[in-house]
Amino acid sequence: MNENAFEKLPLNTVKRLPKRGHYDKETIFGILDQHFICHLSWEVDGQPYLIPTAFGRQGDIIYVHGSSKSRMLSALTDGRPLCMVVTHIDGLVLARSAFHHSMNYRSAIIYGHAREVKVEEKNEALRIVMEQILQGRWDEVRLPSEIELKATTVLAIEIDSASAKIRTGPPLDDDEDYDLPIWAGVMPVSPSFGEPITDPAMKQEQPVPNSIKNKPGKKK
Amino acid sequence: MNENAFEKLPLNTVKRLPKRGHYDKETIFGILDQHFICHLSWEVDGQPYLIPTAFGRQGDIIYVHGSSKSRMLSALTDGRPLCMVVTHIDGLVLARSAFHHSMNYRSAIIYGHAREVKVEEKNEALRIVMEQILQGRWDEVRLPSEIELKATTVLAIEIDSASAKIRTGPPLDDDEDYDLPIWAGVMPVSPSFGEPITDPAMKQEQPVPNSIKNKPGKKK
Repeated sequence: MNENAFEKLPLNTVKRLPKRGHYDKETIFGILDQHFICHLSWEVDGQPYLIPTAFGRQGDIIYVHGSSKSRMLSALTDGRPLCMVVTHIDGLVLARSAFHHSMNYRSAIIYGHAREVKVEEKNEALRIVMEQILQGRWDEVRLPSEIELKATTVLAIEIDSASAKIRTGPPLDDDEDYDLPIWAGVMPVSPSFGEPITDPAMKQEQPVPNSIKNKPGKKK
Repeated sequence: MNENAFEKLPLNTVKRLPKRGHYDKETIFGILDQHFICHLSWEVDGQPYLIPTAFGRQGDIIYVHGSSKSRMLSALTDGRPLCMVVTHIDGLVLARSAFHHSMNYRSAIIYGHAREVKVEEKNEALRIVMEQILQGRWDEVRLPSEIELKATTVLAIEIDSASAKIRTGPPLDDDEDYDLPIWAGVMPVSPSFGEPITDPAMKQEQPVPNSIKNKPGKKK
């Protein structure tokens, strides 16, 4: 296997609109690194489960965490197959025809399995998750106690296979529809991060720290 | 069953932080109606699959659509269990302790199964999906031809069970941490819709239509 790309296998190959498919790590990890929330699914006895959760990436490993009592985390610790998706919606693609309406998006799909992170790796894994949410925050806060670490389960997701799917650009209509007197174009969509709201329970005034000036996502 | 709420069953009951759980349709459908993208998962032979996709809701039915060749749609037409999630991230919750960092969010989880929409119901189902994306757009565009309708599979998701999970407000730290000289608060997050970009391939000037002035999501 090429160390810079994932092999195209039946599981991860983009079948619909294959031109939108990408398999190189730079593209796939780039989509992950500009986000901090993934959706994660697994199955138990034929029943699919799905949750949104924070994540952090370091190299080829993706970390997610939660309460030790979480049913997600306990189901996944046996290494059963999981599927994780990170999705950016970049625009509504408004065509002349209903049929050619679309979205501009960048999504990455990870097929893998999880292992529970050992106690000595936990602190670093949690740092990676927090740094993905807000670079620099870890160094500003009160770090986890031993009791808090025990109450937290961290999973390391090992990637078996992955792909990205990307659409960009204006709508693409059928040739004859370009003559129709219908406005077509793209409405851009992006996440917006507002002014920080200081906790009203602050006991002393504190300047807004540096980390808060960063946008979520892993710094390049 | 109460017609205004979903019964609390083992599958849909929020176990972690049960105070954040909601089961009434007004809350759950409200979360759906302010969005236009869901994540949808299902399993085949123990392998979970997961995709982001557009959806539309009408009453108790949720519609999703795709190419007739899509492997998602063909797997789901047999009525196997599916899980659908709609997630709004409303803020990063920045506590004094790493452990109490959180997100403000509204998410709805739907457990259900799909049936393929019959030809005579298809056009209306597609209208519902498009209206969820941008109210009024359906009346402005060239509607689907018979060939296009044939090339599109539409699924109606029937809800077996559902719940919502919501967090709002400032961080909640341990009592003793409120004395620490650490800034805490919330960074608001919301989707931002930019100025529409007219398709450079427009053959004649057209005013930006009314639908584009609406924000995505189903109008109340």
